This record gives sequence, C-alpha cells and structure tokens, in this order.
Amino acid sequence: MRIIKQGNLTVVKGIKASGIHCGIKSGRKKDLALVYSESPATAAGVFTSNCITAAPISVSKENLLDHQAQAVIINSGIANSATGEKGIEDSRQMAFLTASALNIPASSVIVASTGLIGHFLPMDKIASGIDKAVSSLSTKGGKEAAQAIMTTDTFTKEIAVRFEIAGFPVILAGMAKGAGMIRPNMATMLAFLVTDAAIQGNFLQEVLRNAVEKTFNRITVDGDTSTNDMVVMLANGLSGIEEIAPQSKDIDTFTEALDFVCEKLSLMIVKDGEGATKLVSINVTGALTETEAGKIAFRIAESPLVKTSLYGRSCNWGRVMAAAGSAGVSIDPGKIGIFYGPVQVVRKGLGLGSDSEKAAESHLKSKEVSISVDLHVGKASITIRTTDLSPEYIHINADYIS
Amino acid sequence: MRIIKQGNLTVVKGIKASGIHCGIKSGRKKDLALVYSESPATAAGVFTSNCITAAPISVSKENLLDHQAQAVIINSGIANSATGEKGIEDSRQMAFLTASALNIPASSVIVASTGLIGHFLPMDKIASGIDKAVSSLSTKGGKEAAQAIMTTDTFTKEIAVRFEIAGFPVILAGMAKGAGMIRPNMATMLAFLVTDAAIQGNFLQEVLRNAVEKTFNRITVDGDTSTNDMVVMLANGLSGIEEIAPQSKDIDTFTEALDFVCEKLSLMIVKDGEGATKLVSINVTGALTETEAGKIAFRIAESPLVKTSLYGRSCNWGRVMAAAGSAGVSIDPGKIGIFYGPVQVVRKGLGLGSDSEKAAESHLKSKEVSISVDLHVGKASITIRTTDLSPEYIHINADYIS
Repeated sequence: MRIIKQGNLTVVKGIKASGIHCGIKSGRKKDLALVYSESPATAAGVFTSNCITAAPISVSKENLLDHQAQAVIINSGIANSATGEKGIEDSRQMAFLTASALNIPASSVIVASTGLIGHFLPMDKIASGIDKAVSSLSTKGGKEAAQAIMTTDTFTKEIAVRFEIAGFPVILAGMAKGAGMIRPNMATMLAFLVTDAAIQGNFLQEVLRNAVEKTFNRITVDGDTSTNDMVVMLANGLSGIEEIAPQSKDIDTFTEALDFVCEKLSLMIVKDGEGATKLVSINVTGALTETEAGKIAFRIAESPLVKTSLYGRSCNWGRVMAAAGSAGVSIDPGKIGIFYGPVQVVRKGLGLGSDSEKAAESHLKSKEVSISVDLHVGKASITIRTTDLSPEYIHINADYIS
Repeated sequence: MRIIKQGNLTVVKGIKASGIHCGIKSGRKKDLALVYSESPATAAGVFTSNCITAAPISVSKENLLDHQAQAVIINSGIANSATGEKGIEDSRQMAFLTASALNIPASSVIVASTGLIGHFLPMDKIASGIDKAVSSLSTKGGKEAAQAIMTTDTFTKEIAVRFEIAGFPVILAGMAKGAGMIRPNMATMLAFLVTDAAIQGNFLQEVLRNAVEKTFNRITVDGDTSTNDMVVMLANGLSGIEEIAPQSKDIDTFTEALDFVCEKLSLMIVKDGEGATKLVSINVTGALTETEAGKIAFRIAESPLVKTSLYGRSCNWGRVMAAAGSAGVSIDPGKIGIFYGPVQVVRKGLGLGSDSEKAAESHLKSKEVSISVDLHVGKASITIRTTDLSPEYIHINADYIS
C-alpha cells in the first residue's frame, strides 16, 4: 500500500466530484459538494450516536438500507438539524433534485449537512446549486468537494492510497471535515470514502463500522458530539477485482487500507482541532478491559485541567491522576505508572521528582506529545487522540455561532 | 432564620479558629488553618468520589468513624495526594501534633489538605505551624481560617445563620474553598461547617449527606473531580438545645439552615470559578427521573461549546440541544423546550426565530444567567450551577501548577 501524493476522491476509478458556491455561506465560499460514481456502488454508513439527529441522518440511513448508492450531496453552512418535519422534507428534496439531475433513483443519493443548528436550508439556492454541482462534476473535482464541506476547518482533509488485490490495482480515497464539537461516536465530522474495490454490502458495513470504531471514535477535541456526524463509503467495483466477502483472502489487505485512511483522516481532524497547538495521544495500558481503558483515556483527554496544562507545557501529572481516578473505573493508585512521551514521571503511584518532570516538560515542547498511563492490572489498552485547550479555542467558539 | 452579617465559623458558641503562615506557600500567605470546639462535638463528613484519594481523606474518614471530633487542621499549598504510605503517616502526624497541643485525643482531629498533588508536606514547618496555630486560636479567628484554606480562590467563602430551635438561638456557620477542578462529588473544594446545635452523629451524617447532594454536588466549573474534597461538620451542642434526632420536630428548621449554608457556600465557589464572567444555572425539567435530569444538566453545564457561547453572550441553543442529546439519556427531540432566562427560544424542538434569540442574548448580558431545558416527558427536575469558559480560565490553569 502506498499513499498517492495529493490524492483525493477523484483519483478513484469512476468517481467524479464537484464543489461549488450556492449561496448558503457568505462571500464566495464553497458550500455544496457532490460526489458521483459512474456506476452504482455498494455503500455503507456509520452515523452519530447523539439521540437528537439532524434530518439528513434520517434520510441517509433510509437510503442506505439497501446498501446501494451512487451519489453523495453535502452542504455546509447549515446543519438542517432541529428542523422537524420540514427539515426531513428538505433533505429528501436534496436527494430527489440530485437524483433527477443525475438520472438515478433518489434512494441512491446520500445526503449530508454541516453548520448551524436550527436553521432551514434555503431550498431555492440549494436547487440551483445542485444543477451547478452536477454540471461541474469532473474527474478532477475531488479537491473542490473537500473544500466545499469545510466549516471552521483551516485545511482540507483528503487522502488516497493504492494497493493490490489479486494483481489488480485498487484505490481507496477519503475526505473529511471537522475541527470542533469533536467527540465522534460520531463527532461533528463528516467523512466520505470511495473505492473501486468490489465488496459485499453487509460486509462493507461491518468493516467500515470496525474501522470507524478504531479511528474516528477514538478522537476528541472538546467532548461534544454533533447531531450530524456520518462516515459514508461507496465501493463501485470498477477496479475489476472479485467481490470481497467475509471469506475472501484479501480481507486483510482491504481492511488495512481502510483503517489507514480512516486513521489518517481522523488525525487530520484532531490536528485541525479548534485552537489546538498540539496533537496529543492519550495511551491507557494495563487495563482490565478496553472499555475501562477507554473511559479513563477519554476522561483524561477531555479534562480541561489536563488540556490547559498541555497548552502551558507543564508536566502536571497530578491532574492526569485525578482525572484517571474520576473516570468511574476502579483503579489501584498504588500501581499506576505515568509517562510523558518516553519519560516516566510516576511509578507505583508516586512522583519520581523534579528531574523527571523537567525531562517531561522538554517532551511537551513538541507539536506531537503523548501521555501514557499504565494501570498495571490487566492487558487491555487504548489510544485516544486529542488536542490541548488554548485561549484560541474560546475565541473561535465564543464568536462563531454554530 | 437570618444571615449574620460578616458571619464566619467563630460566631458559633464555643468555636475558636486561627489561620497562619507556616511556610508551605511563598511570601507570607496564610497556609494553615485550625478550627477548634471547646467541647467535644458530634461530627460528620462527606468525601471525594474520586477513587484516587489523598492521604488526609483516609485519615479523616478513620477519625470520623465514631462521629466525634473536636478540631480540624487544614493546610493549603500541598494536597498530600499521590504520596503513598508516607503521606498517610504525615496526615496522621498532623492529627497527632494538633491533638497533643490541644490536649485532646488524636482521633478527635480531622485533617484536610489542598494544593499541589504529588508533593510531600514539609513536616517540620507543619509542626511549628501547628504550635503557632494553636496559640493563635481565638473567638475572632474565623476570617483568618477562611483565608488560610484558599488556593486559587480570589475571595474568602464564609457564611453564618442564626435560627431558633425550641426558643433557643442556634448558629450554623461554614467556610469553604474552591475555584477550579470543581465538579464535586466532591470537587476540589473543602467546606467546614460548625454549629452549636446538638445532633445525633448518625443523623448528622445523614442530613449532611443530603445537603451536600443538593448543593455542593450540583455545581461544576470544569468537570474535574479532585482527590482531596471534603465537607466536614461539627455540632458541639453548646446552644443548649435538646439533641436533634430523626424523630425531632425541629428537623426541618435545622436542615433548612444547613441546606441554606451549603447552597450559599457552593454558589460562592461557582462565582469564584476560575476565569468565570457569569454564574450560570442549568435547569432541566420534565425528565423521567432526577438522575436522567442530572445527566443532561451536567452534560450541558460541562460542554465547552455551550460554556464558550455563554462567554460570548451568544444564544446558541443548537449547542445546548446537541449536548442534551449526547448525555446518554433517551429524549424526544420533538418535545424539547429551551429557555434562556425567561425567554423561550425552542418549542417542540424547533427554533422560535431571531427575535427570541435576540431577547435571549439580552438576558445573556447579565452576570447571572440561566438555561432551562424542558424535556416534557416526566416530572423530575434538577438545577446545576456552573460558569462560562473564558480565556482567563486557560491562563490561570496553564500557568498554575496544581
């Protein structure tokens, strides 16, 4: 497997895309993206766990029931969330208009929205925007599509990889958006993946769910979970490979590529975390179960006191310990080891002194840092990616109404 | 019941206190407080729910087993947390030295610490400090004691109320510290209450636990829970009233005063929340159970996106709704009502438009604001107090090593 330089969705065989300005956002910022597969594709999706879901979530779930799709239409600027029945109608209309212009069934269109909650979509602008997006479709449109799904993002998030299955070259590519309200499961994030591999629908759903669980669901910027999150994948089979199924010998090659693309996109989201000055890995090891490791890791990752100390480059392991102890998991303080990067600062629950803390603070000067907590009670572990918490986060979120 | 102007612990009959500088903190800042009851008192305590607890927590729990105490010794600057066996010995030694100087049993001394985690107490300084604190004990020492327990607090937190039981005047007074790492249950907060009422030990424990549940456990600054929190109460009976027991007819008068003092102290802690510009009440009503209401209210109160929007005085009800939906409680989005102060901005899950949002933003200009979410599914409700999240919070916590 290798990364395709400057790869994006449209490096995949049969995939066209476009990103245009239809008038939801001010200025001339792109706010409508379209992804289209020349042939019908197997499709799968993973959606927000927030029990208040936006309209496009309902419509896309419905349209994915048959595990078939051929296009994804995405607007940014307005989330079409908390919009009731009219919101649902608007999302259905987006699918219908896109389907009509592309001459495919409406049930083959996935709909996504991101932006302000509680506002209705300007359907007249969307309607003419969809026509424009369809006529702008191009095999070079991947970058524009990635731009059109951004909200507070400061850079586009795209990746493509090439690998071989049974001698055939296969490409898997993805784009994502997200910078805040990020604790997936899902987070305010959208990700769209396409591949020219062929794969069974149910099985695609399974491997996508697994990949999301290990990647997008292990990042957190601020612990907030959006109403609009989704990861959707289309596999159009145009590479010519045989259909991948649970018994195929090529599963590992495919899932490795899928996991890799999801991992890279999720790291891009964390790196673009609002106001972030650091990419932070929180490792919890030696836990009894992965669930317990996850509870502790998320508690540490979302502790404002830990996050601000990372911003201040201060080895404040007491805050890490206090956060770990309040995760609702029974732990033995006398066994805990804590590391900043490679530097151990706590052994068996006791601090190792100011020399180790100074060494840890050198580590904290890096752009990518880690805190590892070893509970020494079992063998389960997890890694969660997050950011520090800076004054800039507050400026962004006090001013931006989303 | 009435509030005693500038009241503090030493307005209670038989209570002496002192607050001195023993050398833990730099400069001449007070860092050791002593509270003493001339006669043995019934005592009760509520302690942190963090499963990593500081040494003084263990020692104080032990010394409260008999529901008897006569003195409380508290240092600030070092938390004596994550200090292992030596930490326990040091806390025991604090109790022992205090007891010796006061000529009472060591088991009658409650010990508390607040400050840096992972450092040992300077026991030589503590020892001479205890002598000084004992010789400084005075019936006017309440204010000094309240000063000596502060860390990042910007003001002392004290209150005293007078009420009557069976014709006897009774006083109940309290002091507290806490400004960050505040989500009790318990939070990084200490509170010490004294009264000259007489009350059964087990019953005092019960009414104190209830009062804490309704007050200190319903505030949150940053969602972090400290290893050192405690609320301890001494009742020395010197008012001359008959002992209050579960069957007494004066229970309501007493618990009303106790709840009131705990409520006032907990509000002072929130008002002093690090970097806070606002005191925020989050009301969740119409829930099926109080537990569910609490989960939703805490999720909203601790959402960085909600907190920053309050700092920015922006009526961003979509963030409130998204937080409510991700609290792990099943809710019906189509029934939700949201209010900012008295202004309704959402009805049946739908926004009421920009006029209502503008009115809500007028409300957000106040120093004390509220957000109310009515789930319309049941009759349970809760109110949680919190703060907004300002850049100042980050400056305080990036620089201060605690």
